[in-house]
Amino acid sequence: MARAPDTWILAADCPSRLGTVDAVTRYLHEQGCYVTEHHSFDDRLSARFFIRVEFRQPEGFDEQGFRAGLGERVSEFGMRFELTAPQYRPKVVIMVSKADHCLNDLLYRQRIGQLPMDVTAVISNHPDLEPLARWHGIAYHHFPLAPHDKPAQERQVMEVVEATGAELVILARYMQVLSPELCRRLDGWAINIHHSLLPGFKGAKPYHQAYNKGVKLVGATAHYINNDLDEGPIIAQGVEVVDHAHYPEDLVAKGRDIECLTLAKAVGYHIERRVFLNANRTVVL
Amino acid sequence: MARAPDTWILAADCPSRLGTVDAVTRYLHEQGCYVTEHHSFDDRLSARFFIRVEFRQPEGFDEQGFRAGLGERVSEFGMRFELTAPQYRPKVVIMVSKADHCLNDLLYRQRIGQLPMDVTAVISNHPDLEPLARWHGIAYHHFPLAPHDKPAQERQVMEVVEATGAELVILARYMQVLSPELCRRLDGWAINIHHSLLPGFKGAKPYHQAYNKGVKLVGATAHYINNDLDEGPIIAQGVEVVDHAHYPEDLVAKGRDIECLTLAKAVGYHIERRVFLNANRTVVL
Amino acid sequence: MARAPDTWILAADCPSRLGTVDAVTRYLHEQGCYVTEHHSFDDRLSARFFIRVEFRQPEGFDEQGFRAGLGERVSEFGMRFELTAPQYRPKVVIMVSKADHCLNDLLYRQRIGQLPMDVTAVISNHPDLEPLARWHGIAYHHFPLAPHDKPAQERQVMEVVEATGAELVILARYMQVLSPELCRRLDGWAINIHHSLLPGFKGAKPYHQAYNKGVKLVGATAHYINNDLDEGPIIAQGVEVVDHAHYPEDLVAKGRDIECLTLAKAVGYHIERRVFLNANRTVVL
Amino acid sequence: MARAPDTWILAADCPSRLGTVDAVTRYLHEQGCYVTEHHSFDDRLSARFFIRVEFRQPEGFDEQGFRAGLGERVSEFGMRFELTAPQYRPKVVIMVSKADHCLNDLLYRQRIGQLPMDVTAVISNHPDLEPLARWHGIAYHHFPLAPHDKPAQERQVMEVVEATGAELVILARYMQVLSPELCRRLDGWAINIHHSLLPGFKGAKPYHQAYNKGVKLVGATAHYINNDLDEGPIIAQGVEVVDHAHYPEDLVAKGRDIECLTLAKAVGYHIERRVFLNANRTVVL
Repeated sequence: MARAPDTWILAADCPSRLGTVDAVTRYLHEQGCYVTEHHSFDDRLSARFFIRVEFRQPEGFDEQGFRAGLGERVSEFGMRFELTAPQYRPKVVIMVSKADHCLNDLLYRQRIGQLPMDVTAVISNHPDLEPLARWHGIAYHHFPLAPHDKPAQERQVMEVVEATGAELVILARYMQVLSPELCRRLDGWAINIHHSLLPGFKGAKPYHQAYNKGVKLVGATAHYINNDLDEGPIIAQGVEVVDHAHYPEDLVAKGRDIECLTLAKAVGYHIERRVFLNANRTVVL
Repeated sequence: MARAPDTWILAADCPSRLGTVDAVTRYLHEQGCYVTEHHSFDDRLSARFFIRVEFRQPEGFDEQGFRAGLGERVSEFGMRFELTAPQYRPKVVIMVSKADHCLNDLLYRQRIGQLPMDVTAVISNHPDLEPLARWHGIAYHHFPLAPHDKPAQERQVMEVVEATGAELVILARYMQVLSPELCRRLDGWAINIHHSLLPGFKGAKPYHQAYNKGVKLVGATAHYINNDLDEGPIIAQGVEVVDHAHYPEDLVAKGRDIECLTLAKAVGYHIERRVFLNANRTVVL
Repeated sequence: MARAPDTWILAADCPSRLGTVDAVTRYLHEQGCYVTEHHSFDDRLSARFFIRVEFRQPEGFDEQGFRAGLGERVSEFGMRFELTAPQYRPKVVIMVSKADHCLNDLLYRQRIGQLPMDVTAVISNHPDLEPLARWHGIAYHHFPLAPHDKPAQERQVMEVVEATGAELVILARYMQVLSPELCRRLDGWAINIHHSLLPGFKGAKPYHQAYNKGVKLVGATAHYINNDLDEGPIIAQGVEVVDHAHYPEDLVAKGRDIECLTLAKAVGYHIERRVFLNANRTVVL
Repeated sequence: MARAPDTWILAADCPSRLGTVDAVTRYLHEQGCYVTEHHSFDDRLSARFFIRVEFRQPEGFDEQGFRAGLGERVSEFGMRFELTAPQYRPKVVIMVSKADHCLNDLLYRQRIGQLPMDVTAVISNHPDLEPLARWHGIAYHHFPLAPHDKPAQERQVMEVVEATGAELVILARYMQVLSPELCRRLDGWAINIHHSLLPGFKGAKPYHQAYNKGVKLVGATAHYINNDLDEGPIIAQGVEVVDHAHYPEDLVAKGRDIECLTLAKAVGYHIERRVFLNANRTVVL
């Protein structure tokens, strides 16, 4: 399941057409690559092709040459591809507010190597979680939100994201609505955790909404940020059984575990290059 | 879990007040009843008390006397109660359209005794499921829906419900919107299965809605009918994991199992007198 | 998820070696086949390669020619393959005793097309389930087990299996231990459902064993028959939450659903050629 | 679900007999206590009665008088009872080895108040986890295991347990077999997490055992320590879906979450006085 330490990942997608699989696998074979796992899916409704391959390199493997050759080979298909080296760890920025359960969980998983990523900074609109970040040896930036000055705060955020070279931004219960500008800039490379089974209970206080509806299940949704608040493409969802004896504050407490698990799962999928955007949906291979 | 064959069920509720539990348990003790299971819950938000007790009767138990005595004792609390005899099987009418998975499941569970109920009639707006009902020895009524004459058809439905003395109506994928009049008459004693995790995806074609949103979980909701379409108090919900490779028709197929299980669970809870209405929510003891 | 009605399935496996994926995908491309889904896995511990491809045929597709050509191409890899035509429905024999929940479930799924198979006969050591089989229009064979004459009865069983051309035998709660001879003959093409999470609670009365151990979860295991009783390769497992209030007979009742679901899942995987034997384990693609 | 901050818990059990429920509820009523939740269960196989009540005290409540009066009232039933004050937090000692996932999880839940307990010490046979304990402000005792001198080490352990007044010992992946003497002393008040669905895969390296059997589900079991290794009464179990692509080390990684969740659930049940011993099983109310 977890990638072996010596395998590359090739992830690619393009419009559906005869020959897509062969173009990739034949090239890999010509280059002497040993395929350990291959999963491809051709979506007949969106007419789009998705492929993810894990492979071991041959002796004397030349990454630049491989990339160039593959690019030439698949250009006729309009194929985009990403090649990820063994042991590669993306740089990540995590945004939080006051609740620390997701942050604690993500930093723990980073520390033990279950999420192979380098968290370069934690950003918050509150000072509360600095000790937790510091204990893990991670820089903490407190950028308070002055009334009517969200643009200035978001500029600070993006400066850190860019300065650290982050490839992924995780909103780990960051309780502020991002501006449309920031959403656009983060489109497709920022993951948010929403504490409901979207599209149910969008917006604020979803557990209180759930209580009022008397649901028997609560859940969490990890999704990419896009222009439309709480409407970005869903990566993972999780669920917990509840009953009449759970008051709203009990739902909040009960939901923490499933929020952590769902967010960690989505981040793991993203890092392993399993997730592909397919209009407003995702393909997870 | 399942009730023993020799136990009575006492289910009651009333506004919250000191002494409610004692009023019930003391009376049971005075009457020589042996309590095998007791569950009570006092809801601090709705300020309402709910209690469900299973007990074995003493020798020479007099049901009428027991009822009268209990009524006197608890009247000061404004307590409503239901007493259910051992081996009691409620009469049930099932309404269907063309999909037969829930009907097949319910009739199977009735036949093997897992759902202790007597299905007295199956009513449909289509003729298709008559053979299935007949094989189980159950009367089948085909009441087609003429355009613009829903009232006449619903009168036929209610005549059967009343003639058979049904205490519970199950809408087992009956694909017609009930009139407000019928909803009012069935309020609290008719259970519907909706093929989504309500309140998400209300209305028609929920699996197609779910596909379009790219959800990673689909589900089903069993709820009481009330005035508000797909908004009645929820009794049970169930969920299934799905992925990008499930086209809408696959979600429909995948959802059948969870619809059957969720509906059967809700019907079982209802028959065992576990479900209490608590405004627009339910308490399930 | 479910196979599209116009796709072929190619399933193959062989010892691990460079070039296995390419050998298959290149041949498919040369033949003009359109791959809709491809999943392959190279098991580094058993050093064995597994591949499953769904594809649409080109115009003028010649099945015999395709098979011959593929056989030639992959022979150097020692690759075994199975090619399954669109709409193909395997012939199946189901064996039962007295419990009918799995039989009812399998016949229902066959009838609505969810399990694309043709059940040619139901065989039992008891007469009880004949009406159920007959209602579905399926031949029922009652072969009682005379004391000390299991070989004779098993010969009757195999005669039916062979006469009907069955490719799959399903033991849907057949409560008899098969002889080693029969196990050997059915090795790899007979699926049994055991009512526990194997390898826990092997043998008789697993729910009673589970009760005595006070477990909080019960489950079911669908596995291939092999020489070793309740030890054949596992295809699917399912689980249900239980508690202290479930007496042994409640566990039996509660377990029915998960037995049905787990068996149906395993049969579906088998029919869709998703299951590969890998020593005493399975690979499910 | 979680206890309100102003409620007492009364937990009691005794041999089955007519009048047990009434004895408790009548006394509570006479004392002016307001019952918010009541759950009782009479086990017909073990002939034992279990009751758990949450209640709010009246003004001028006298705990000592309450206890004395209740003791008198229920002595004829041979009833044992435990009374737990609002806001009570038991003292707890946690034992670990090198794996820190359960410790990290428990300390996090303590810190945010989800597990209302005071961890007074962490004890380990290795030095590795000291920084984690220290960060939470908790004393860490490193008691290495000298060959052939387990008794001396276990004496050190018990000295800490006794000196800190611990009422609960949690073995959070403590990878040493306790001596029979220590097991006896901890019988009923020490909770262990075993990384399999007991009674399957007892003993060492359960995930490797699970891999070899090719299971499709792995799990975890939280149980009380008793004389019989990995055989103590089960409090909670959890499960995760796995597949052929999970090598043994992947199962180890995958299992961490379910170990944490299962252990935390069992500890929560214990602290809320929901767990009763019933021979070698538990009743969880």
